[in-house]
Amino acid sequence: MSRSAIEISGKKFRTANISKRVRKIVISPIKEMSILADLREEKSDADVISFGQGIPWWDTPEYIKNGIREALKEVDTAKYTLEPGITELRVLVAKQLEKSKRVKKVEPKKEVMITVGCQEAIDCALATLIDHSDEVLLLEPGFASHIEQIIQFGGKPIFVPLQERGGWRFDIKECEKRITKKTRAILFSNPSNPTGMVLTKKEVEDIGRLAIKHNLIVITDETYDFLTYDNVKHFSPASLPRLRERVILCGSFSKKYAMTGYRVGFAYADEGIIDHMLKVHDALAICAPAISQKAAIAALKGPQNSVKESIKKFTEQRKLMCRELDSLPHILQYEKPMGAYYILAKVKRPNIDSFKLAIKILYEANVIIIPGAAFGPSGEGHIRFSFAGEPKNIKVGFERLRKWFEKWESRGYNL
Amino acid sequence: MSRSAIEISGKKFRTANISKRVRKIVISPIKEMSILADLREEKSDADVISFGQGIPWWDTPEYIKNGIREALKEVDTAKYTLEPGITELRVLVAKQLEKSKRVKKVEPKKEVMITVGCQEAIDCALATLIDHSDEVLLLEPGFASHIEQIIQFGGKPIFVPLQERGGWRFDIKECEKRITKKTRAILFSNPSNPTGMVLTKKEVEDIGRLAIKHNLIVITDETYDFLTYDNVKHFSPASLPRLRERVILCGSFSKKYAMTGYRVGFAYADEGIIDHMLKVHDALAICAPAISQKAAIAALKGPQNSVKESIKKFTEQRKLMCRELDSLPHILQYEKPMGAYYILAKVKRPNIDSFKLAIKILYEANVIIIPGAAFGPSGEGHIRFSFAGEPKNIKVGFERLRKWFEKWESRGYNL
Repeated sequence: MSRSAIEISGKKFRTANISKRVRKIVISPIKEMSILADLREEKSDADVISFGQGIPWWDTPEYIKNGIREALKEVDTAKYTLEPGITELRVLVAKQLEKSKRVKKVEPKKEVMITVGCQEAIDCALATLIDHSDEVLLLEPGFASHIEQIIQFGGKPIFVPLQERGGWRFDIKECEKRITKKTRAILFSNPSNPTGMVLTKKEVEDIGRLAIKHNLIVITDETYDFLTYDNVKHFSPASLPRLRERVILCGSFSKKYAMTGYRVGFAYADEGIIDHMLKVHDALAICAPAISQKAAIAALKGPQNSVKESIKKFTEQRKLMCRELDSLPHILQYEKPMGAYYILAKVKRPNIDSFKLAIKILYEANVIIIPGAAFGPSGEGHIRFSFAGEPKNIKVGFERLRKWFEKWESRGYNL
Repeated sequence: MSRSAIEISGKKFRTANISKRVRKIVISPIKEMSILADLREEKSDADVISFGQGIPWWDTPEYIKNGIREALKEVDTAKYTLEPGITELRVLVAKQLEKSKRVKKVEPKKEVMITVGCQEAIDCALATLIDHSDEVLLLEPGFASHIEQIIQFGGKPIFVPLQERGGWRFDIKECEKRITKKTRAILFSNPSNPTGMVLTKKEVEDIGRLAIKHNLIVITDETYDFLTYDNVKHFSPASLPRLRERVILCGSFSKKYAMTGYRVGFAYADEGIIDHMLKVHDALAICAPAISQKAAIAALKGPQNSVKESIKKFTEQRKLMCRELDSLPHILQYEKPMGAYYILAKVKRPNIDSFKLAIKILYEANVIIIPGAAFGPSGEGHIRFSFAGEPKNIKVGFERLRKWFEKWESRGYNL
């Protein structure tokens, strides 16, 4: 199985100088599809509709932008912040964790660090935990970049397949049988990108049991913690006191406050772990952008109506996209997402190469979807849809898809 | 020799879970001193003067901030940019490289990527070039974080000592004798942080000769390229056509435009290298902050008077600090910096532990200076001063230092 839709430029001159591990990784197909679409639009003026990268279509709320305007009046916005982040922001994050996840007594100056988005938080966590050839368990289908992040540090991703039927459920036996002496951590996003799965309390407890038994660290990407549907509750392993010392909770402001461009997130862990993660963060980025940290302060201090409105919009868009998908029952089948804003739909044709399919759809229908194989072996034969985009685009995109699938059917499902 | 002023929290509970390589790295003492000072100010209300982290004391120029205000009106500022950066910015960087460094025909969409400051550009370069136990030559004293960045990816920093007398000169023989089959790259900042050394054209050519002979990649950190004194000219290895394919040029907007807090920089290299670096960048940060990229666009498109004014201010501050240092000839001796805004002064007492000295000076004189040992073995017995701070603070800081050194003398130079 390929993990990439396109070959990189193919310019071989310097290949001998490229590290083996980086030769092994790929650019996440989530971004690769956007880059391809950009090239395509440039060449052909094609108007591409994206169900690809998960970006809320609305702007950052005005109260946050006002916070940024105020920040521009302060000279320290020009300057590096303290390396672990602005203290006020760490205090706000700590309070938020205590309130929304019922974590007890979070110490902002010892246990919270501000990062360049959740992505960098996870990168710091992995560098801190794994040495060359160490293994990390990945619930899969899982976030594509987690795979590359592990390989980039010389580690080995070990895929723990989730059970699609019933909504991509976690199976403790499937997980435990993959644990070896080399296993250092278990990593997942919850709610899940790309499946929309939300771990139950029982599933989180199962993971915790394994972590304690086998001395693993639990890295949890909780970017979408605010976004669940149908009264499903998000449950964080950090809220289990017996797990607290072995959880690295990574979070973000990107999706909750429509701030994906600002690159600001955080990590929360025991200070015995954070101390080491800070060293990696320092070498990697020095500090998160001051202006984005101040935007995050404004986001947390302001009224939270915008979050409620966002949830309302995502809920409507989910309904809309499910309805559109239901109009293609002969082609696609899916588990309804209980959180986040993604659907990983199964293509009801045998032996589908999801990369080939995604490229065809981009070039022939002008719609970006993400090939499921990007998310792990169980993702093959699937395609991921983001429903973070505008309702009118969801409609137009599916009109294009329906037409394309009709043609595809008429040519015998050849790619 | 210790590479750290303080021990991290010492909480041992999770040490068994920490990777060996991260146990080996330290937080850069440049930031560590700021963290210590912050703790100190919090506890004692001490008013600390910093000659530590190199941050221009003035604000980001108004024309750049206006660019940010305009950017807040555009919805795409809220969103991820293309992973390699906003195309307009890549085009501007390419033009700048052609103009100021006479690099020929830079291809913005293939050879330029926008990063989270120069720091991330170098991190991407190192991950791309080195595997476990590979070696990287570091001209030293050199930028402290380069050491940690190499170790973080499992590599081994090999120190190439510069010759202090005459201004920290590069010696090709000292360099060549350290090259082994494991050597993958040579890394330096030019103008140099911490010495203020600027490589001559001849020295750059020498480095290039070694790179070609031994198939090495040259990673050059050119953050301070705009800032040289006494008619010294900066010369980039990227401007040598025969080296072009093996140079990774990393740059920044931080110092030139008083934008250290914005975390935006770039890398320029052959597309056969950039293609791989982009994969690391994706896993590490997704993209540089959109708002900071737009600030950088405003910086490059606007009038460049502010840069001239900055150079004028740095030149005056250099003169002032040299004068202050000259008032302590029995304690300190230094090579006049020809670029950047640092002086690495030798403490004229035998066997000085620069970490102990820096901590004493912070706690007893309320002045931050950076221990020279942070920059490599040749830095031991030295302390680094930044003259990016306000003239009045330079004066007050040196009054404190003179008093402290008097006391130190009276107690027989004990630490």
